[in-house]
Amino acid sequence: MKNAATIDISADWDTLRPEEKLASFRALDREAADDFFLSLESRQQAELLQLFPPGERRLWMRLLDPDDAADALQEVEPAVRSELLGELDEATRREVAALLAYREDQAGGLMSPRFARVRPESTVDEAIAYLRLQAPNVETIHYAYALDGEQHLLGVVPFRLLFAAPPERRVADIMRTRIVSVAENADQEEVAALFAKLHVFALPVVDAENRMVGIVTVDDAVDVVQQEASEDIQKLGGSEALDEPYLKIAFLRMIRKRGGWLTLLLLGEMLTATAMARYEEHVAKAAVLAMFIPLIISSGGNSGSQAATLVIQAMALGQLRLRDWWRVVRREVGAGLLLGAGLGAIGLGRIVLWQALWGSYGEHASRISLTVGFSLLSVVLLGTIAGSMLPFLLRRAGVDPASASTPFVATLVDVAGVVLYFTIATLLLRGYLL
Amino acid sequence: MKNAATIDISADWDTLRPEEKLASFRALDREAADDFFLSLESRQQAELLQLFPPGERRLWMRLLDPDDAADALQEVEPAVRSELLGELDEATRREVAALLAYREDQAGGLMSPRFARVRPESTVDEAIAYLRLQAPNVETIHYAYALDGEQHLLGVVPFRLLFAAPPERRVADIMRTRIVSVAENADQEEVAALFAKLHVFALPVVDAENRMVGIVTVDDAVDVVQQEASEDIQKLGGSEALDEPYLKIAFLRMIRKRGGWLTLLLLGEMLTATAMARYEEHVAKAAVLAMFIPLIISSGGNSGSQAATLVIQAMALGQLRLRDWWRVVRREVGAGLLLGAGLGAIGLGRIVLWQALWGSYGEHASRISLTVGFSLLSVVLLGTIAGSMLPFLLRRAGVDPASASTPFVATLVDVAGVVLYFTIATLLLRGYLL
Repeated sequence: MKNAATIDISADWDTLRPEEKLASFRALDREAADDFFLSLESRQQAELLQLFPPGERRLWMRLLDPDDAADALQEVEPAVRSELLGELDEATRREVAALLAYREDQAGGLMSPRFARVRPESTVDEAIAYLRLQAPNVETIHYAYALDGEQHLLGVVPFRLLFAAPPERRVADIMRTRIVSVAENADQEEVAALFAKLHVFALPVVDAENRMVGIVTVDDAVDVVQQEASEDIQKLGGSEALDEPYLKIAFLRMIRKRGGWLTLLLLGEMLTATAMARYEEHVAKAAVLAMFIPLIISSGGNSGSQAATLVIQAMALGQLRLRDWWRVVRREVGAGLLLGAGLGAIGLGRIVLWQALWGSYGEHASRISLTVGFSLLSVVLLGTIAGSMLPFLLRRAGVDPASASTPFVATLVDVAGVVLYFTIATLLLRGYLL
Repeated sequence: MKNAATIDISADWDTLRPEEKLASFRALDREAADDFFLSLESRQQAELLQLFPPGERRLWMRLLDPDDAADALQEVEPAVRSELLGELDEATRREVAALLAYREDQAGGLMSPRFARVRPESTVDEAIAYLRLQAPNVETIHYAYALDGEQHLLGVVPFRLLFAAPPERRVADIMRTRIVSVAENADQEEVAALFAKLHVFALPVVDAENRMVGIVTVDDAVDVVQQEASEDIQKLGGSEALDEPYLKIAFLRMIRKRGGWLTLLLLGEMLTATAMARYEEHVAKAAVLAMFIPLIISSGGNSGSQAATLVIQAMALGQLRLRDWWRVVRREVGAGLLLGAGLGAIGLGRIVLWQALWGSYGEHASRISLTVGFSLLSVVLLGTIAGSMLPFLLRRAGVDPASASTPFVATLVDVAGVVLYFTIATLLLRGYLL
């Protein structure tokens, strides 16, 4: 990798102070500086643009493609935005202003308006000559799009095939008319899923009348997939999505994003105290019961977290849809019974063993071991069912299934686990320990 | 989207029986069948290839690019593999056989050997004519690679710029010589990270002598990012990565992958029972202490899961490296103190309120409330520190940090939480309740 210098700076970039950023950027030769600037995220480009003295801004603004310029401008204050917009030439300014009207997470917000066009009635040679004229000003000529006079999308031809076709053929004869396009207001997650499925380099973006307005390219999909996965992972971990790098986000903003969920979970977990208050007498009579509370509720929480994660992940990849819920229930009931029986047997065995070795649990050890064993079985079963169904319920209610975070599932199962455990204890131990 | 029919079948594909797959595939017209076959995952292509009668296999094998053919062949038994390999023409067979030598998760396993070459000493017009000859047989002509006689990579020129350059210029004058390339044995995660950073459509793959052996294209990076994120998410949820779709994986294989972790976690959680055995007398004297066990240990687990997830995610995105550990400790000590103080205040307030309303906790209510409040503060602080440092320790030890799953962190913190809680209770309540 000859580009090692560039890559090294960028690894440290976010940790530099503003004046250090400017200094290390200025230390690059021109080609390296261009590469580096273009490789930055929009947020970082926006920051650097504002660090430059006004006279230098034009140069760097004009290096950006319209879609990247629009992304960078989304990151700055409105006043700075119009100042930077003013650095662009008239035509680009109009393109960028049009892109700024889309939300960042829509196809329109990701697209470039600079795509390669051909006329369907042209010959292959005419089309190639026409593309040669467009080449300096388009994002890619990987595909050429055949449009009619009203910009309706009629066909697509990979440039590679156009280039290899007999010169006198018509574009209309070699173009593909079965086209996958995306709506300008399509969600970016939908766009990324299409790229993952279709293995193409670019997709045309069309408005409500099927007029082509731009292309989205697959390199943007990589970012989207990574960003959506980050959000899912952070939500699953029981936090709001930070939306900023960990070391970069302001401390108090991070605390707010984390504190909200932790507080909600604490309030939920307080129900365990309420539930247990009903069994205070049981605990007073048989303190041994308290020893196994963490073991039992955690096992329920763990099996629930696991089931929820697998289901959420399968949903995110499009492997599971709402109507599959019944198949999932059947699988998870089976899994819960089998896993619960295994864990229950281990828990039961542990008590039997300790009793045999040290007599730890007194005369009712076998009943205590049965209580713990059955409680583990039921709480694991409960956990897998609750964990696997919660994402379906959330999605049904229109909420992101990833909000069924592992701590959320664990909290739900904890409360139920306490009740289950003491109910089973009451059944098995009344007249003995209770 | 005119391609709706194709997309509908593919959504249901994995749920169909083999004979249904063959029937719905045969119902497609030729163009749709081509599109559909190419849009399948390698696993699905391999399955379909084996469903076809032998006479039909050649047609579909030959539709695949060498890299995709190699991926599909990785999914079948060795005997079938050589039979299918035999359906390819001689040249492609050699290419595919060479690709099969790479591991699937290396750059070499992702690459296509069919890239567009130019000679640096050619004129622009000569290069374009030469590329026109290659066009039908290369994966993309988005970039043309300038090689010397020994296949050493000297430069890259985007076809778009070559196409727009004056016909008499030399390729050597317009090509970029600052090239980012990947080693043939580079990990696919590294390749995906480069694509996410550089926003290019393809990267050249070189061997140890800088001879170019192929290109990896960005569409493959989308899959890699998605696959790596899935693995991370499943590990974080406390399961081995399933590596197969949820509804598709054999039931017992899934149980094995899930059961291993759950059993380990159960064994870890048994330490809570051991730890609590030391405090059985405390519980016998003051059963009220047992009421708050789930609340306290879960709060530690939740804050630990949250911190671990944020750190693992930041590591996966390259925002955090080993040497950042000290900055993370400082942030997390601050976060733990602040979040812990908040949760502790809520826990304390809850007891004070219940006492005021119903007298639930008797004469020592204020000492109980302080015990719970301080325990929450310390356990949350402990959780954030343990959760944020565990991924660093694992990475240091060469283990995937995502193995610091949320249930794993929660279990660690549970055991310590029990000890902390009863220690604080002993300090504050001895001579009163204890």
